[in-house]
Amino acid sequence: MHKKIPLYKQPRSSIMSIQEMGQAARLASLQMSALDSKTKDNAILAIANALQASAPEIEAANRLDLDNAAALPLPIQKRLAFSGKKIAASIEGLQSLASLPNPAGITQKATELDNGLELFRVSCPIGVIGVVFESRPDALVQISTLCLKSGNAVLLKGGREALNSNRILAKIVHGASIAAGIPDGWIQLLETREDVSEMLKLEDCIDLIIPRGSNAFVKYIMDNTNIPVMGHADGICHVYVDKEADIDMAVSIAVDSKCQYVAVCNAMETLLVHEDIAKDFIPKAADALKAKGVALRGCPKTCAITPMEQASDKDWDTEYLDYILSIKVVHSIDEAIAHINRHGSGHTDAIVTASRQAAAQFTALVDSADAFWNCSTRFADGYRFGLGAEVGISTAKIHARGPVGLDGLCIYKWILCGNGHVVSDYAEGAKRFTHKNIASSINDKFNW
Amino acid sequence: MHKKIPLYKQPRSSIMSIQEMGQAARLASLQMSALDSKTKDNAILAIANALQASAPEIEAANRLDLDNAAALPLPIQKRLAFSGKKIAASIEGLQSLASLPNPAGITQKATELDNGLELFRVSCPIGVIGVVFESRPDALVQISTLCLKSGNAVLLKGGREALNSNRILAKIVHGASIAAGIPDGWIQLLETREDVSEMLKLEDCIDLIIPRGSNAFVKYIMDNTNIPVMGHADGICHVYVDKEADIDMAVSIAVDSKCQYVAVCNAMETLLVHEDIAKDFIPKAADALKAKGVALRGCPKTCAITPMEQASDKDWDTEYLDYILSIKVVHSIDEAIAHINRHGSGHTDAIVTASRQAAAQFTALVDSADAFWNCSTRFADGYRFGLGAEVGISTAKIHARGPVGLDGLCIYKWILCGNGHVVSDYAEGAKRFTHKNIASSINDKFNW
Repeated sequence: MHKKIPLYKQPRSSIMSIQEMGQAARLASLQMSALDSKTKDNAILAIANALQASAPEIEAANRLDLDNAAALPLPIQKRLAFSGKKIAASIEGLQSLASLPNPAGITQKATELDNGLELFRVSCPIGVIGVVFESRPDALVQISTLCLKSGNAVLLKGGREALNSNRILAKIVHGASIAAGIPDGWIQLLETREDVSEMLKLEDCIDLIIPRGSNAFVKYIMDNTNIPVMGHADGICHVYVDKEADIDMAVSIAVDSKCQYVAVCNAMETLLVHEDIAKDFIPKAADALKAKGVALRGCPKTCAITPMEQASDKDWDTEYLDYILSIKVVHSIDEAIAHINRHGSGHTDAIVTASRQAAAQFTALVDSADAFWNCSTRFADGYRFGLGAEVGISTAKIHARGPVGLDGLCIYKWILCGNGHVVSDYAEGAKRFTHKNIASSINDKFNW
Repeated sequence: MHKKIPLYKQPRSSIMSIQEMGQAARLASLQMSALDSKTKDNAILAIANALQASAPEIEAANRLDLDNAAALPLPIQKRLAFSGKKIAASIEGLQSLASLPNPAGITQKATELDNGLELFRVSCPIGVIGVVFESRPDALVQISTLCLKSGNAVLLKGGREALNSNRILAKIVHGASIAAGIPDGWIQLLETREDVSEMLKLEDCIDLIIPRGSNAFVKYIMDNTNIPVMGHADGICHVYVDKEADIDMAVSIAVDSKCQYVAVCNAMETLLVHEDIAKDFIPKAADALKAKGVALRGCPKTCAITPMEQASDKDWDTEYLDYILSIKVVHSIDEAIAHINRHGSGHTDAIVTASRQAAAQFTALVDSADAFWNCSTRFADGYRFGLGAEVGISTAKIHARGPVGLDGLCIYKWILCGNGHVVSDYAEGAKRFTHKNIASSINDKFNW
């Protein structure tokens, strides 16, 4: 039963309309593109200090959420909890984020177009990001500070179970960052589904929507906005055990990919096995997986080797997020690749093989964000990839793909510096372009 | 009067449904990601040779289009014409494209995650691109071969006035490329608006839609698809003449930006002038612009200096694409930047100033794809930028911005190579990540 507990008081921003919040964020974002590294890093460290100082207040707000969630499933309550160690981990994450290089202001290309006419492609923030995320309060801290470090303003909508935690956290992030010199308005907290519907209309203010959730949720967002959407959707991940696989390695990778954490998008859902190795591999893999409590569903050839429940066609398209695995025997690496490109979700797929050639073929032809060789699908993660943190794992195919860190929150602008150069000189043939790469003669950072 | 002239016979692909065309393109694209540079470049050169050999056939088809277009405005007929010199320029463009480096397969990042566990971020084609473009037959050749060079399959819809030219050109590009080893299905020609409507539904087959046209057209496309859209929309470009501008340089840049070619998106539509320099600059600029036939519309302060038609509020938001210019006097560089960020279209904006500091401020704070200093807005162009060619100029803020060449048609995948590495070792603390940058020890190209 849900107890009626007074809500934590609303932060200042929530008395604004969503449109006003979007406009405030847009105005702030225009200032943020000129922030230097030091200002942003000091603000991130100030947020870390404020989290430390306000830990008791955060824990009290989080207890309200946990009390309200007493009737919800235990895994949700576990994700919702935010105290002690989790707060400390957030603070540690912020310190690490502050130490990363500034992703904005990097010169990506430099070309002399002609004598005295120099073109630079320089990274810059995207502008205003709208993020809809699940009920983990630490996600609010991580996402907002990734946006801050990359120079973006952000509209945040967390899970409603975390409402009190999110309010106090947004208040802390807002207060500490403004005091450290970040333009007011850069962080806005949305609270209801209606708020999200309003946000989806703000194509003049918001440059990118990042929805984290199910395929159906990402599709709902896409159906209802003209703003670009970078979907973090289902992960139907595969491990393909090639005929030249080391069997012990393949068993170990299969067990880790499936069982290390079943409820996440980078866990394996389907195991593909080359027919030449199936008789040796499947019984061993089945034993190891069953020992971890995994329910197995096989194609007819798999069932003929090790008796198990028969898989239906639907299994090949299902993200179980649970201790369930489908297994299919394939004739060839080509069949494995075709199966993945047809049934996978473009997230993460791995091959286990001793053949460098098979690995090259697999990673080139599998149309997924992450193509792995001889390692677990569970490595698909911003922290493990060394990106510092992630705002999500993109299953989209433009802008950013796979784990999205600071780079994925930046775009670029072209800066062309001349000395009165006009196009008519080139159109009439009086001058000619040189198009000389001058990248080596400039600094990594664009300096005036 | 439109004469009734028999249409050029339809290419093979047009007897397929749009859905079948999308599926064929998707299948071809999965193969194309593994094509090597040589195969792609040879195909591009084969297309160049085929254009040369088929010039009379192309000219005959183009004449049909021109006959049908006899009642249309002269500028449209001029754009539609495709013979002699224009065919030669297309062929030259293809030779230059073939000589550019392969944009796919570039290692963008390389990180050792742990001993024997190496992560590579490698560029790859996006997949299937849908491009809707205007009535220039040379655009078909340029867009399709940019897609081929970057390894993408493409669905093309050109202007209906160019139907016969597009059919013969698509047939030539298709035939020559297939004979050179490019997978069949990679190029598909759409012919009607209904075809485009069908294409917009193919989110399972198409990864990116590039519409070239008006803001209204780009918005129509966005309203009617869940596929990501990289809009090439209006260009409301500004030149801001700072108080520290060299007046002669400012006049010359204003004239070139406005008059060098008025009907294009990178032409200036509004001239902003600092009040301290307005009395000296505006009379000279007005003389030079009027001499070129430009009709001027000024704010009250401008009109007080040089009498001209008074600008209405609507002028600041108008893309004239004609010999018309609005002029506004501003108090400060801040007001100029705010005006551009409010009324501009994020395309191309230039500052004329002798002050490095003002240029730095302007280019940092103007939220446009192209921020120029002391040069004409007309330089915003893929060829002039040294990108070889362009598929369009993106006014979107994610993925690619400004002139979009081969880079903008690529994304990346993450390739992780291990030796049986599993995540549980790291989760349990048995192993630790090293996250060492190994980019310097590898080749630019990812090699197996």
